[in-house]
Amino acid sequence: MIKTDILIIGAGPTGLFTVFEAGLLKLRCHLIDALAQPGGQCSEIYPKKPIYDIPAYPEILAGDLTDRLMEQIKQFEPGFTLGERADTIEKQDDGSFIVTTNKGTKHHAPVVAIAGGLGSFEPRKPQIENLANFEDNGVEYIIKEPELYRDKDVVIAGGGDSALDWSIFLSDVAKSVTLIHRRNEFRGALDSVEKVQELKNLGKINLITPAEVTGILGKEQVTGVVVSKKGEEPYIVDTDHFIPLFGLAPKLGPIANWGLEIEKNAIKVNNSLDYQTNIPGIYAIGDVNTYPGKLKLILCGFHEATLMCQSAYQRIHPDKKYVMKYTTVGGVTGFDGTKKEAPKAVVKAIE
Amino acid sequence: MIKTDILIIGAGPTGLFTVFEAGLLKLRCHLIDALAQPGGQCSEIYPKKPIYDIPAYPEILAGDLTDRLMEQIKQFEPGFTLGERADTIEKQDDGSFIVTTNKGTKHHAPVVAIAGGLGSFEPRKPQIENLANFEDNGVEYIIKEPELYRDKDVVIAGGGDSALDWSIFLSDVAKSVTLIHRRNEFRGALDSVEKVQELKNLGKINLITPAEVTGILGKEQVTGVVVSKKGEEPYIVDTDHFIPLFGLAPKLGPIANWGLEIEKNAIKVNNSLDYQTNIPGIYAIGDVNTYPGKLKLILCGFHEATLMCQSAYQRIHPDKKYVMKYTTVGGVTGFDGTKKEAPKAVVKAIE
Repeated sequence: MIKTDILIIGAGPTGLFTVFEAGLLKLRCHLIDALAQPGGQCSEIYPKKPIYDIPAYPEILAGDLTDRLMEQIKQFEPGFTLGERADTIEKQDDGSFIVTTNKGTKHHAPVVAIAGGLGSFEPRKPQIENLANFEDNGVEYIIKEPELYRDKDVVIAGGGDSALDWSIFLSDVAKSVTLIHRRNEFRGALDSVEKVQELKNLGKINLITPAEVTGILGKEQVTGVVVSKKGEEPYIVDTDHFIPLFGLAPKLGPIANWGLEIEKNAIKVNNSLDYQTNIPGIYAIGDVNTYPGKLKLILCGFHEATLMCQSAYQRIHPDKKYVMKYTTVGGVTGFDGTKKEAPKAVVKAIE
Repeated sequence: MIKTDILIIGAGPTGLFTVFEAGLLKLRCHLIDALAQPGGQCSEIYPKKPIYDIPAYPEILAGDLTDRLMEQIKQFEPGFTLGERADTIEKQDDGSFIVTTNKGTKHHAPVVAIAGGLGSFEPRKPQIENLANFEDNGVEYIIKEPELYRDKDVVIAGGGDSALDWSIFLSDVAKSVTLIHRRNEFRGALDSVEKVQELKNLGKINLITPAEVTGILGKEQVTGVVVSKKGEEPYIVDTDHFIPLFGLAPKLGPIANWGLEIEKNAIKVNNSLDYQTNIPGIYAIGDVNTYPGKLKLILCGFHEATLMCQSAYQRIHPDKKYVMKYTTVGGVTGFDGTKKEAPKAVVKAIE
């Protein structure tokens, strides 16, 4: 059982910044995310895209935003349960909560902060009859560990940036990479399209277009896929892995069954005072919540996380009164013993 | 008469970021600030101090924060009335407002956003009988234009960073710099104290401690000050300028008389929905406002500015419905004709 002060569901920008604000209040945080790495959609969907409305960043790549937030919260030693989806929540007699993931990992905390964005990202899956039988046995929808593919035969399907970029990356790792797309045209960064063309010309990527994977072969483990190319008989391509990269779609998922008030796929919170839900002790911050005037912007999530932490502090320490100190004045003391602070003024005679 | 869409009182971080969010909605902004440059206390009081709680900045100097915000809003061509204090407001028949500064500059806008921080910064003044007679005639409390002191004799009074740093700076500009402090000990950055010691040793700064300026000489213009040093007869130091740098203290000032609901030196807003005050069309954002759960943090001001702009848009364009576009998707189009946007994906065949 993992124990923490604030259990955060969702490791996107809002969830990550919560660790910092909680840390200032000496509260520890642990984050659960269905994705394999922190950053939410910023890392998974558009790491190389610029964001222009983060205050004081005229431009920042979404991936860099994640990196800066990870750097900012490092001092407060957050815990992570990654690649697992928060599935169930049970309220304990003392008002605390136990949250269990789809893989059975249990987490215990007095406060739960849902920072789940648009939901947990679920891969879009192709319509292939026996696909589900091979999940985690050669069929992967998200590449979590590229080393899994070293010296293996890999078939990637898709026509967007993910399919292009992973084909490029794995062409150096795998024994062979076959890229299959139902059109001749790919949609992505010019660089990536040109690089795939180059690797195809060098024979480092096998390209099959316009074509689709229509079947999977193998007993327990994938041994090949059936490829249907327009105007040709279906044929078999031997492979160890089949990786359909057709994008991720967010789903609120199991959280929708936690007894929270839901409105238009978002969790209603109490009028933007502390972003608490209808269940005391469960907060919802960032894109996952809704209240009158709500804007689904990262900068609003930062604010909501900050106010939420103050309320969480009161819940965890009902007898204490927290007096806010400015970081410029008081510095920041990490759980790892480090302290960041402004250079001290000296009092010194001039003679 | 200066005309704009949103007239912002206060050019601190919250006021500056308002320009960006308003710009996304195609609304123009003009800012009034009593200080001579944008940035509020970040620029005037602690430009070299680090702030640790700006999201995604593990550390940023307050002065750099201002610079980044100025860079971010440049595209939206904000107007500035600097070095003037917003004094009076008059509601017009059409619901718009005219705001006049202490120097008589008039501004007209349908929406006023008060982002006044803790108030306008007023210098702490020494107790010298005829001091007021010489204001702007040789007595200055804030250095707005260092060139004013070129080849002049200057007396600076004070024992903190401002007195130290301006003494250092002006020692290269003025004919002579005399630094007077009522103690031998100065309080400031170690570098600055050591630099003043060095310049004193080189004869480039005249140091008189422990001493006070107790009188000013001159007809219309300052010609000298009376210096009282402990255990000595008061004596005269000839000078063209006397600059007491005893710090700035914020005062809500004339805004307190605008008919707004005030609570503990802050302006009450309507429950954090859009940060509107009791006077429709006047909003209060950032440190100047109060509502249940309010935290006086820069990051909260950014959020408040953003929600406020949406409400201002509705007030200015009651018949239009604004559909928010993410900057990552839609880019940012400036009033100066520039456009920032993510590199476009291409659709391109691989053959």
